[in-house]
Amino acid sequence: MGASTKKGKKIAEKSRRIVKKLIKDKIEGLPPEEVEIIERIVHSTADPEYADITRMSQEFIPTTINALGDLKDILVDVEMVKAGISYDGDIKCYINHPTVIKMAKDKNMTRAAAAMEYAASKDFSGIVVVGNAPTALSKVIKLTEAGMDVKSIIGVPVGFVAAAESKKLLTKTNIPYLITSGPKGGTPVAVAATNALINLTKKWRGGIR
Amino acid sequence: MGASTKKGKKIAEKSRRIVKKLIKDKIEGLPPEEVEIIERIVHSTADPEYADITRMSQEFIPTTINALGDLKDILVDVEMVKAGISYDGDIKCYINHPTVIKMAKDKNMTRAAAAMEYAASKDFSGIVVVGNAPTALSKVIKLTEAGMDVKSIIGVPVGFVAAAESKKLLTKTNIPYLITSGPKGGTPVAVAATNALINLTKKWRGGIR
Repeated sequence: MGASTKKGKKIAEKSRRIVKKLIKDKIEGLPPEEVEIIERIVHSTADPEYADITRMSQEFIPTTINALGDLKDILVDVEMVKAGISYDGDIKCYINHPTVIKMAKDKNMTRAAAAMEYAASKDFSGIVVVGNAPTALSKVIKLTEAGMDVKSIIGVPVGFVAAAESKKLLTKTNIPYLITSGPKGGTPVAVAATNALINLTKKWRGGIR
Repeated sequence: MGASTKKGKKIAEKSRRIVKKLIKDKIEGLPPEEVEIIERIVHSTADPEYADITRMSQEFIPTTINALGDLKDILVDVEMVKAGISYDGDIKCYINHPTVIKMAKDKNMTRAAAAMEYAASKDFSGIVVVGNAPTALSKVIKLTEAGMDVKSIIGVPVGFVAAAESKKLLTKTNIPYLITSGPKGGTPVAVAATNALINLTKKWRGGIR
């Protein structure tokens, strides 16, 4: 679970056992890959409620693993998400890009949403991870429906304003998705889900599965 | 709340009103500065439970604001915390430092704990923010008791193993602290608390208060 030392791995293993026990009833019958992702989210947040509210569309896991296996780019909404992901491919974050800052002011949109528009204008192709800003999620859904090459979306923005709505919107599209329903979510959830998928990709490609 | 565009600020204000309503009963009688910090944590996590579990020692706010006003260094456990804080002073994160990686292996400790030891060896002086690793918190408590110049600790590590214990340990010291009791916490909590305090510092120093 991100731990690299013996000591760190021991802690992670113990935590994993506790998590398994805590959410046992909630994950019954789910495919093992889905369970692995949910366990990592609960481990990262110490909040078992994520086992109830994390949902993935049927094509989400295979599509995302294919893209990650090809080292497709990952586009994230905020720097905190980028800082937490361990990936051999490129992670793009444009929220602090001067063009994006100007675009946001000129068009009266959030910087997180403007960053998605900027990515689309740069012919982004890959996975999108939104851990914070509902406005980024709503925007990237629209852009994808208009032709942006988004393979799948990890859409877990957090907050009492527009977050739940933006995630619900995503579930009504044809885009493969992972969401957390309701206001909860956030950067550790985004990071945990993404790192779990990167891990699953390595297992699949390495033939460990 | 970190928002910089008109649109972003509007969302943040609306969220702040919802948060206020949700936690009204839980924050009654608390000093306004404490309320501001708690509101920002609940805003960032969309989890009102943080109003129940966030605790600060009496000297925590004035001590921290004094240090931040002097632009003292902030030492964080993981890069995600660093990525989320907006500060004019220096933010130190040593978890990926080659010396720390070697030290962790040699001494069979976590990299997060080794990073605290490394900071102490470099004569760190300032605020410590632990958003992820309980081992970093336990270590920095010991180092502070042995003479490391730590003004205050925002100690909100997350997890089912050792996190609750490390935070409880902090409350039994003389170090000014902010904690979230129990297993919950995490990088957004750490970032929200720190940014709220930086904001309070600006208000105090700017004479807005």
